[in-house]
Amino acid sequence: MAVQTAASTTDSTAVDLGPAAALSCRECGHRVPLGPVFACEECFGPLEIAYDFSSYDAEELRKRIEAGPANIWRYAPLLPVPADVADKPNLNPGWTKLVKADNLARELGVTGGLYVKDDSGNPTHSFKDRVVAQALEAARAFGFTTLSCSSTGNLAGAVGAAAARAGFRSCVFIPHDLEQGKIVMAAIYGGDLVGIEGNYDDVNRFCSELIGDPAGEGWGFVNVNLRPYYAEGSKTLAYEICEQLGWRLPDQIVVPIASGSQLTKIDKGLQELIKLGLVEDRPYKIFGAQAEGCSPVSTAFKAGHDVVRPQKPDTIAKSLAIGNPADGPYVLDIARRTGGAVEDVTDAQIVDAIKLLARTEGVFAETAGGVTVGVTKKLIDNGVLDPTLTTVVLNTGDGLKTLDAVAGTGLTATIRPTLDSFREAGLA
Amino acid sequence: MAVQTAASTTDSTAVDLGPAAALSCRECGHRVPLGPVFACEECFGPLEIAYDFSSYDAEELRKRIEAGPANIWRYAPLLPVPADVADKPNLNPGWTKLVKADNLARELGVTGGLYVKDDSGNPTHSFKDRVVAQALEAARAFGFTTLSCSSTGNLAGAVGAAAARAGFRSCVFIPHDLEQGKIVMAAIYGGDLVGIEGNYDDVNRFCSELIGDPAGEGWGFVNVNLRPYYAEGSKTLAYEICEQLGWRLPDQIVVPIASGSQLTKIDKGLQELIKLGLVEDRPYKIFGAQAEGCSPVSTAFKAGHDVVRPQKPDTIAKSLAIGNPADGPYVLDIARRTGGAVEDVTDAQIVDAIKLLARTEGVFAETAGGVTVGVTKKLIDNGVLDPTLTTVVLNTGDGLKTLDAVAGTGLTATIRPTLDSFREAGLA
Repeated sequence: MAVQTAASTTDSTAVDLGPAAALSCRECGHRVPLGPVFACEECFGPLEIAYDFSSYDAEELRKRIEAGPANIWRYAPLLPVPADVADKPNLNPGWTKLVKADNLARELGVTGGLYVKDDSGNPTHSFKDRVVAQALEAARAFGFTTLSCSSTGNLAGAVGAAAARAGFRSCVFIPHDLEQGKIVMAAIYGGDLVGIEGNYDDVNRFCSELIGDPAGEGWGFVNVNLRPYYAEGSKTLAYEICEQLGWRLPDQIVVPIASGSQLTKIDKGLQELIKLGLVEDRPYKIFGAQAEGCSPVSTAFKAGHDVVRPQKPDTIAKSLAIGNPADGPYVLDIARRTGGAVEDVTDAQIVDAIKLLARTEGVFAETAGGVTVGVTKKLIDNGVLDPTLTTVVLNTGDGLKTLDAVAGTGLTATIRPTLDSFREAGLA
Repeated sequence: MAVQTAASTTDSTAVDLGPAAALSCRECGHRVPLGPVFACEECFGPLEIAYDFSSYDAEELRKRIEAGPANIWRYAPLLPVPADVADKPNLNPGWTKLVKADNLARELGVTGGLYVKDDSGNPTHSFKDRVVAQALEAARAFGFTTLSCSSTGNLAGAVGAAAARAGFRSCVFIPHDLEQGKIVMAAIYGGDLVGIEGNYDDVNRFCSELIGDPAGEGWGFVNVNLRPYYAEGSKTLAYEICEQLGWRLPDQIVVPIASGSQLTKIDKGLQELIKLGLVEDRPYKIFGAQAEGCSPVSTAFKAGHDVVRPQKPDTIAKSLAIGNPADGPYVLDIARRTGGAVEDVTDAQIVDAIKLLARTEGVFAETAGGVTVGVTKKLIDNGVLDPTLTTVVLNTGDGLKTLDAVAGTGLTATIRPTLDSFREAGLA
């Protein structure tokens, strides 16, 4: 199989991915050298990056970070990337705004400080730029020349853009009947964009076949054979939030759940900052947010289950519509361990929350942002989230990408171009 | 008239807009106190901000700027805003990426260093956030409570978002038959969005009437009675470009022309940096870029005229489609004085340039960015722009806002989900 070949022919001593020391199985702890592999050969558990941070002094590290660039590479010492990553051509995502949301706080009754981490400010306007940037560096390290993925939206654009700038070929696979607007957003970067006759499951199955075939040799699938590297990008959300709060942990953080990977990596990032002495060790709670139309983790949480039963997604929050989330059990574990929760909201509540955030803070979120804001409101109403504590809500994408979800939003009034008509409309 | 009333009842000594000392007529130099006025009472020339920078020491100022926030407010000492502006609720635009465009440089044959100043990274994804942020501070200073404008696109969203965050009412006027997508982008922020039965000229005429009517009292029209303040926001593009180049003037800069205001203010910003000693005084050339379908300034430049003859716009570059640009004569003057030029490109060239920029740098520009990149290519091909010099090209907005312009961009191939089908398509 091409994956194993690639792993065994890569001399791990030649791979410079900074502090990344090995791949380690999340289930059994088995370690293997850094390579383009994602499943443990012992137990088939997911592999993740094991780091060597032993040489870091907290004060020196903090200064080094603060003197770094205004993007995720300020955290290069904590990521699986070479030390000179900032000099290589990439989109330099991250260091997005942490918006102090005082107006929204008033509406929701939050008195302890409410913040929106607004990842719509990334180069292709979603958090995917963070994870793709890590996968790109791994692809460079492993000598890949094509960047690939299966996608139904945000990821396609992030991969296409990152590959274009880095001088990689890209080949992105999507269901052939995606909306024209989404096709344009992905195709504009000039890589190969291949429509698969079938649904998203068919696309994924095809990609898995391609990885095992000679035709896929030299290809880095960002969320498959590069997944352990890719996933680490979400740690930067945790780092940025803490640094932007003045090197302080938030008390509560509300994170959307698709595969669940982002939530687990935010927890990993917070734990690293504690262990490295960059923030004071205090309790924090992580809350997961889903759409009711795709709420397998929320359903399991409420039922007290440890396993997540797959669902068939039916929601406007398409970027979160993963019915069988790989990291669901880990999310349940983290929500329970930290004293958080997992909750879901209806499509109507998602739309209301998008409008609420736009109206109060001037931030136009995609549907995933409507999910987190809506869940935050619900958790406060239910007494689960403490409004007297510092709370951070993630917005992981831009409203311009999901205009259809709020298509009903329209004109206040239509008038003739006269003052009389203006007055008649009651607008003065 | 309400405008004059507002001006005469505003005690200019009570208005704190930082270094802004007065309004000064660009034509006759007549000075009036700071107020919501935009035309000279002596000669009807345009009023602009006169500053008092006399107390600044170059080295201290540079340090103060570098220690400032990662947004336009790092330049507060050079803008008509109070010193504590960064503490007030606003969208904090600016400090967008200056992308070193090495791939594009290779394609265009630029050897002296090519950069794209990418203003799609602003909160509502166009440079309009910069100018609206200034107008908002002026509105606060003059005691206005409603922020307003006429618009057909980017400005509507920028005003709606800024007003929402600042706690202002907003009332934005648009032609009633705008595309639904553009209406959603403006309406989402929850302010009043009023459709006017008529074209954009009718909307503008109505707004001018409203300013003179009691119904418009307390209203700040960002690009009418607040225009002198508003326009200054474009200076921040010049400041950022120079600081991001390491406090150095670019040799050549390519700027889109709508009203022409942005180009004149970029020149003003560069001149200020020279006078303040923040950059070394060296020659620089400013080039203006228009779409052929709305090229009144380019036409006048090529004909050697000093006056600009209005045109009826017909181009996909709608954000630049101003047929009678108010600052056209000033643009001609600056292009000639600095040794630059004004050029235009066809709609087909605009689309090609959007794709070129996306394919080489992973930056998806709106049509205005296609205009500047296309004009840059044309000016190099014609031998007007020197490829051995450091060149900065502006992208003032995001491709997601003008998807229609590149709607033809599509799939490379459509295949069945099998390796055979993949190989048949020649993609391996």
